[in-house]
Amino acid sequence: MTEFLRVIAPDQFVQLLGGFDRLSSERVSLDASPDRILSEDILANEDLPEGSRSTVDGFAVHAEDTFGASDSIPAFLEVAATVAMGTMPDFEIHPGQAAQIPTGGFLPRGADAVVMVEYTNAAGSNSIEVTRPVTVKTNVLEKGEDARSGEILLPVGKRLRSQEVGFLAAMGVTEVCVYRKPLVAVISSGDEVIPIDRKPSPGQIRDANSHALAALVRAAGCESFLLDIVPDNSDLLKEAVRTGLAQADVVAISGGSSVGMRDLMADAVSAIPGVEILAHGVAIRPGKPTLLARRMQKAIFGLPGHPVSALIVAQVFLAPFLQYLQGGKMEKGPAGHRVQATLATSLNSTIGLEEYVRVRLEETAEGGWTAYPVFGKSGMLSTMVKADGIVLVPMNAEGFSRGKAVHVIQS
Amino acid sequence: MTEFLRVIAPDQFVQLLGGFDRLSSERVSLDASPDRILSEDILANEDLPEGSRSTVDGFAVHAEDTFGASDSIPAFLEVAATVAMGTMPDFEIHPGQAAQIPTGGFLPRGADAVVMVEYTNAAGSNSIEVTRPVTVKTNVLEKGEDARSGEILLPVGKRLRSQEVGFLAAMGVTEVCVYRKPLVAVISSGDEVIPIDRKPSPGQIRDANSHALAALVRAAGCESFLLDIVPDNSDLLKEAVRTGLAQADVVAISGGSSVGMRDLMADAVSAIPGVEILAHGVAIRPGKPTLLARRMQKAIFGLPGHPVSALIVAQVFLAPFLQYLQGGKMEKGPAGHRVQATLATSLNSTIGLEEYVRVRLEETAEGGWTAYPVFGKSGMLSTMVKADGIVLVPMNAEGFSRGKAVHVIQS
Repeated sequence: MTEFLRVIAPDQFVQLLGGFDRLSSERVSLDASPDRILSEDILANEDLPEGSRSTVDGFAVHAEDTFGASDSIPAFLEVAATVAMGTMPDFEIHPGQAAQIPTGGFLPRGADAVVMVEYTNAAGSNSIEVTRPVTVKTNVLEKGEDARSGEILLPVGKRLRSQEVGFLAAMGVTEVCVYRKPLVAVISSGDEVIPIDRKPSPGQIRDANSHALAALVRAAGCESFLLDIVPDNSDLLKEAVRTGLAQADVVAISGGSSVGMRDLMADAVSAIPGVEILAHGVAIRPGKPTLLARRMQKAIFGLPGHPVSALIVAQVFLAPFLQYLQGGKMEKGPAGHRVQATLATSLNSTIGLEEYVRVRLEETAEGGWTAYPVFGKSGMLSTMVKADGIVLVPMNAEGFSRGKAVHVIQS
Repeated sequence: MTEFLRVIAPDQFVQLLGGFDRLSSERVSLDASPDRILSEDILANEDLPEGSRSTVDGFAVHAEDTFGASDSIPAFLEVAATVAMGTMPDFEIHPGQAAQIPTGGFLPRGADAVVMVEYTNAAGSNSIEVTRPVTVKTNVLEKGEDARSGEILLPVGKRLRSQEVGFLAAMGVTEVCVYRKPLVAVISSGDEVIPIDRKPSPGQIRDANSHALAALVRAAGCESFLLDIVPDNSDLLKEAVRTGLAQADVVAISGGSSVGMRDLMADAVSAIPGVEILAHGVAIRPGKPTLLARRMQKAIFGLPGHPVSALIVAQVFLAPFLQYLQGGKMEKGPAGHRVQATLATSLNSTIGLEEYVRVRLEETAEGGWTAYPVFGKSGMLSTMVKADGIVLVPMNAEGFSRGKAVHVIQS
């Protein structure tokens, strides 16, 4: 049995990935920016709001005029004017006066607070009673309170959610600088592997891996392209990886779960000029026969041929790496909602391997969750499909007992 | 003050949304299917694998030949052949014989188990010693074990993850029937609102809402288009909503946080022939002045003009509704990872309103989380931007005390 050259711990693998440079920047329109990560600070070049605005429907007043007002002793004010939306009022409110103002309306000069309409009563055609006092700035969003000219609106590294997009829109920012999204070249290899639209002859299997990997890349918000399936031939493997490197930021090639094929892939990759093998094996199960290499700033993932192993490795390392390249933190995957569950059966695990166990979740009568390991032989795709998520058994554990509270990552 | 016509509880609002029909189906290629939801069952029309395959590198054997084998008393077998990848072996293994087989290789006739290479030693040029026994089917993935012809591979309603895509690829499924994705018409209204690429005159504000809503729709995996900003004019509002209804599956129009404008929008929407107002006000804060209407099977969301309120309503109701329309469950939002946190300060809330409080999260020394409410006046976009998530205070609570364990939805 050929020994792995350099089996490393999962955390080391993550560290190696974090050693790659992030991708370059690009300018995109604000509408294309959701879920992208800023590659530079965005500065405010004006105040928001540009003048003081009311946050309620009511009356703009001198706060002082309302001090002591109550239901029994209301303050009387003359309604001198009405603020219209979309205009900056050109009049002034003097002591003893009020101006009707809608939510969002800009305060007229002189006014320093707004009384909600609920705390006023009409008193004749042109006056109101105010039944509650307001202090200065009550119900007023002051000039520059949301953002002040010159300050950093959003810092580099910030992922843009819909609220950030709205904030930038309000500030008149129509384009932003974000990290480029990685493009991934996906390659399947193996003499037995055929395209999915063909009927396998005896002994052949369809190419599940590249389509599953393309789906994973797409779910990570990135683009991929598929190269032709490569037979088990060192020169052709080398050529395919070179083609991938020339066109993409990341190459993900799967195949070679058997020992011989694994070595073939390692040989082919390391024969490419400028390629450095960073890891040859990672201490996880499934997924141990994983290769990581680099050429300049481009990563090459050599994934196992087993679809289940390939997908687990891709979830644990590749998907987070794609986030990292476009500005995110490098954190071990899988990403996904985490729920706490009680383990329905014991799990055995091997010391020295971090194990990713597929589980089904069932809701309990009390509204909690029970996790049932999905057992199945290595290479069974249906185990992944039946699973609602994954339980991670750490390297130093021999397994988990039945009844243990575990975290299930819904991935 | 104008009363709301029909303020309903959030759960009722969700129920109303769940009363809409889902969208129609469409056929998409497998590579376009990730994160889509099946609109019909997918049946297997062949067995997977189509023959029995080895799950390890080793030797295909008659299990019976290995019974009792150990390091001290190994079983001796003649290596009669080698299984090549990509072909169905055309030979047979007789008792006393073995065939070298790679991981994934198809078993030759006669063989019913595989011995891992680790438990064999070479014994001369053409024989091996087997040092551990195997039982029938050990290290073998049997014909049809992953999927059996005729069975339901994946049921209607299943959301396709990368593993399902891989599974379908392996089965030769190249196209799937999924629910169509909704197209959303986004409209902003208000005399004071101008496009984001213009410099506001005094009293004007830029259109934050439609860009934030478009971002939210995009984050939900759907498409939207923006109509022109509509001034506060009943006829023009009506016309814009009609245009939206003609072109899109859902119309989201924001504007009218002031009482007068709110009524203007309700009047405009209800004046459209065939439109039924389902809700005029929902008991949440922020976001109470929300309108829900339907025309045939199309929903019209009348959202508040305040960007913060509009976004909260969109997260709580619109985004989940977009998932529902394309086959998901109708569940109240916001969607997002949930973390447990300790509340840093007390929160006041009003009985009868479900309150969505924006909070910042800070990690504690112990690896837990503290949630700090982001206070700020209504209409401050920066409160949404500063927030890492939302804490929901239920309708029947007057608030939460400092130190309470709360769930924060990272949205």
